[in-house]
Amino acid sequence: MKQGQFITVEGGDGSGKSTNLSFVKQLLEKSNINIIITREPGGTVVAEKIRKLLLDKNEETISEQAELLLIFAARAQHIHHVIKPALAQGKWVLCDRFTDSTYAYQGGGRGMDGKLIELLEHKVQSGLTPDLTLLLDIPVMIGMNRVKKRADLDRFESEKKLFFEKVRSAYLTRAENNPQQIKVIDASQSLKKVQKDIVQILSVLTDRI
Amino acid sequence: MKQGQFITVEGGDGSGKSTNLSFVKQLLEKSNINIIITREPGGTVVAEKIRKLLLDKNEETISEQAELLLIFAARAQHIHHVIKPALAQGKWVLCDRFTDSTYAYQGGGRGMDGKLIELLEHKVQSGLTPDLTLLLDIPVMIGMNRVKKRADLDRFESEKKLFFEKVRSAYLTRAENNPQQIKVIDASQSLKKVQKDIVQILSVLTDRI
Repeated sequence: MKQGQFITVEGGDGSGKSTNLSFVKQLLEKSNINIIITREPGGTVVAEKIRKLLLDKNEETISEQAELLLIFAARAQHIHHVIKPALAQGKWVLCDRFTDSTYAYQGGGRGMDGKLIELLEHKVQSGLTPDLTLLLDIPVMIGMNRVKKRADLDRFESEKKLFFEKVRSAYLTRAENNPQQIKVIDASQSLKKVQKDIVQILSVLTDRI
Repeated sequence: MKQGQFITVEGGDGSGKSTNLSFVKQLLEKSNINIIITREPGGTVVAEKIRKLLLDKNEETISEQAELLLIFAARAQHIHHVIKPALAQGKWVLCDRFTDSTYAYQGGGRGMDGKLIELLEHKVQSGLTPDLTLLLDIPVMIGMNRVKKRADLDRFESEKKLFFEKVRSAYLTRAENNPQQIKVIDASQSLKKVQKDIVQILSVLTDRI
C-alpha cells in the first residue's frame, strides 16, 4: 500500500492554526483522502498526559531540559502509536505542531542547544519528517493581540513578546533552510487569502495522487 | 562550604532496598550528617507525576524510547530542583535508585542502546555522578519470592524472570566497570550481615569528614 503523506501545521499563537487545520482537513477529504488529525504534544492517551504536565501551571517550574525531554517522550509515543501506523496504512496524517515547534520554541525561544534537539530528533524519529509543513507566519504583536481576546493564557502563551520574536525568527530560519518541506504563509492576510494560499500549496500534493 | 556527598542505593526488587535506605539514613545522622532522602524516578512534584505515568498500568503501552526519555526528564527535574541545590548547601543526598537503574532496567532489561543512555546521562547530569552506590545484589528467584509476599505488582515488577536476570547482570557489569563508585553487597545474607557490610562501606566516607 502507498504510504500516506505527513502534513504538519505550525505557527505562533494567534496565527489561525486551529481554523486552518480544519480547513486543510476538509480540503483533503474533498479529494477523497483518508486523513487523521492529531496534535503535539499529545495525540495518544499517555502523550496527552505529558501535554497536561507541560501546559499546567505547576507549583514548580519545569527545567528547560526536562521540558525538552518530555516533549520528545510524548513525540516518541505519538510516532509509535499513531503516526507511523497510520502512514503505513496509507492514511494521511495532519498534525497540529511537530518538531519544527521544538526548534522554534525550545531552540529559538528558550535558546536551548540545537544540537541536542537534532540528536533527539534523529533518535526518536529515525528519519520520519513531514512531507509538507504549512507555517502560518504572523508578526508577533498582531498574533498576541489576537490571542488576548481569548480566555486564560497557558504557560507557553504567558511568555513575553521577546520570546515570541525569537520563536518567529527560528521558524523563518527553519523555513529558509528547508524550503522543500516548509511553506511560509502570510497569516496576517484575510482568512480568505490565507486559505487561497493553502489551496495552492496543497494542490501540489493532491495532484500527485 | 564543602559540597555534600551523593549516595545512591540500587538493587532489584526484593533486595531490601527500602529497609536499608532507612538504615543508611540513621547511620549517617548518628555521625551528625545533614542528609536528605529522595528517590527516582521522582523526588519533586513534577518528577513524581512522571513517576506515576511510568508506573501506572496505562491503557496504552509506553514505548521504550518514551520510557527512557520520561525517566531522564524526571531526572533533569530532580537534579535541578533537589540534588544539586542540596549538595551545594553541603547536605548529603541519599537517593533510592539513580542512573545505574536506567543502565540496568532500560539498558540491560529492555536491551536499549547503551550509547543513547550514556548520551542522555552526559547531557542531563553534566558530570554529576554518585560518590558512592550501594548495590544490593540478590539472586533473581530469591528477590522475586520476597516480592510476591507483598500486594499488587507494578508495571516494572510484573516483568518476567528473564528480564530480572538481565537487570541483575547489567548491574553487576556496571559494578565491575565502576569499582570505586559501586559497592556490591550480598543481599541474600541475613539483614544483620547486610547491615554490617553497609556500616563497613560507609565508614570510608564518614571517616573523611
